[in-house]
Amino acid sequence: MNLEIALRMCEAALKQAGREGALISVAVVDAGGHLVTFQRMEGAEIAGPVLAPGKAYTSVAHRRTTAELGRLTAPGKELSGLAGDRFVCFGGGIPLWADYGEGERVVGGIGVSGGTVAQDVACAEAAAEVWRTG
Amino acid sequence: MNLEIALRMCEAALKQAGREGALISVAVVDAGGHLVTFQRMEGAEIAGPVLAPGKAYTSVAHRRTTAELGRLTAPGKELSGLAGDRFVCFGGGIPLWADYGEGERVVGGIGVSGGTVAQDVACAEAAAEVWRTG
Amino acid sequence: MNLEIALRMCEAALKQAGREGALISVAVVDAGGHLVTFQRMEGAEIAGPVLAPGKAYTSVAHRRTTAELGRLTAPGKELSGLAGDRFVCFGGGIPLWADYGEGERVVGGIGVSGGTVAQDVACAEAAAEVWRTG
Amino acid sequence: MNLEIALRMCEAALKQAGREGALISVAVVDAGGHLVTFQRMEGAEIAGPVLAPGKAYTSVAHRRTTAELGRLTAPGKELSGLAGDRFVCFGGGIPLWADYGEGERVVGGIGVSGGTVAQDVACAEAAAEVWRTG
Repeated sequence: MNLEIALRMCEAALKQAGREGALISVAVVDAGGHLVTFQRMEGAEIAGPVLAPGKAYTSVAHRRTTAELGRLTAPGKELSGLAGDRFVCFGGGIPLWADYGEGERVVGGIGVSGGTVAQDVACAEAAAEVWRTG
Repeated sequence: MNLEIALRMCEAALKQAGREGALISVAVVDAGGHLVTFQRMEGAEIAGPVLAPGKAYTSVAHRRTTAELGRLTAPGKELSGLAGDRFVCFGGGIPLWADYGEGERVVGGIGVSGGTVAQDVACAEAAAEVWRTG
Repeated sequence: MNLEIALRMCEAALKQAGREGALISVAVVDAGGHLVTFQRMEGAEIAGPVLAPGKAYTSVAHRRTTAELGRLTAPGKELSGLAGDRFVCFGGGIPLWADYGEGERVVGGIGVSGGTVAQDVACAEAAAEVWRTG
Repeated sequence: MNLEIALRMCEAALKQAGREGALISVAVVDAGGHLVTFQRMEGAEIAGPVLAPGKAYTSVAHRRTTAELGRLTAPGKELSGLAGDRFVCFGGGIPLWADYGEGERVVGGIGVSGGTVAQDVACAEAAAEVWRTG
């Protein structure tokens, strides 16, 4: 993960937010879950600086989209005991994979917050697409 | 609890992880819930350093497996208000009992995280078996 | 404070870091101390995501540069009891002022971390200059 | 950083502790500051599980030994405002460097706690020596 591609991922997320009519925050973290870049649109809620990095970190920590983690932590499901502040378990976080010679590893994550969950997911997907296509 | 047997429990958990094809973290804590040893396999997720000690601590704190605690904290069940970051309430944590002359007491705990819940439980069980058989 | 000018401030801070030969993180926060944008240069330390937003927040919270706050919190000085994790009390944070018709108010802050304190201050100053000159 | 070499570093630290007559905890973290392994000797204090990982994380976060950071955070020194719980600023933490093709980077850290500071430093040095000599 580096700042240059992280900024391009943010740009793609914000462009998608414009199409969605959503006001979002977007975060990109490295393999350790530490922030590389963050951007909050004018007018986006102050929960964004908490939730966008939180979703990005969570997607790295569990190597899953936070949408999938949301399904696994629903009442009666395998990880329902995972609730709490530490991990953000609903859509908008996507882990980023790469193979630098040791097999596929999670090397970073994206998190988007501020719109509806569907909008957050769409914006995060737009950013992840930048990652996948280089 | 001491480091020597804690290391042997880790070894058993990691060996079981190999059989399961899982990448795990394993933690052993003492009667105070404080870490004695911790090991994270190469490639295992960074949630492990949070969740494995968390499960070990939780199993000591409640004198129950975290799997059992997961059932008790399900919606509508007796302890459903226990959710939060403090206790990790799904399978992979096992309390360790001993009788040093004052009756059976919990003297430590094991926590495993990183695989499926079933894999985590199997690895923790392998470690607990070392404890039981000395 | 808005994202557009915040990004221009980041750009100025990073350009100054290049001149200084420093690897930095830079954060811009709003009047509520909440993150607007953050950028960490490739190779910059992981304390940056903690300290750069911390300095920016601290400069807003106290309406002072964190360098000045460092002097005030020195042993024997007026605010020496302020030490702790909540506020970051050494150079690199600068409050941003504006008069939107109600007199001069602090409307945001910049924080830089990763270089020497002198480098952090120089980078934050370069960003603040963008703010002052519009 | 991987578990195999981390365990060998722990072994070296514990062997040095034996020579010093100290009861210690030792932690090894990765480039993100996340725990790879931890060992606490029988009879070592329960502050160890807090301070040893804390020193290891701090040495990674600041790319300095915690001893050096202790000097920089002394009253009147450049970083005296860094005090708090987040970073552990006295001897016993050592960053570990490697060049995997992008220049020298901090790829992990060691932290030792439980003895005198001089003993902690000696044990951490013994572990770091294993890293340096492969």
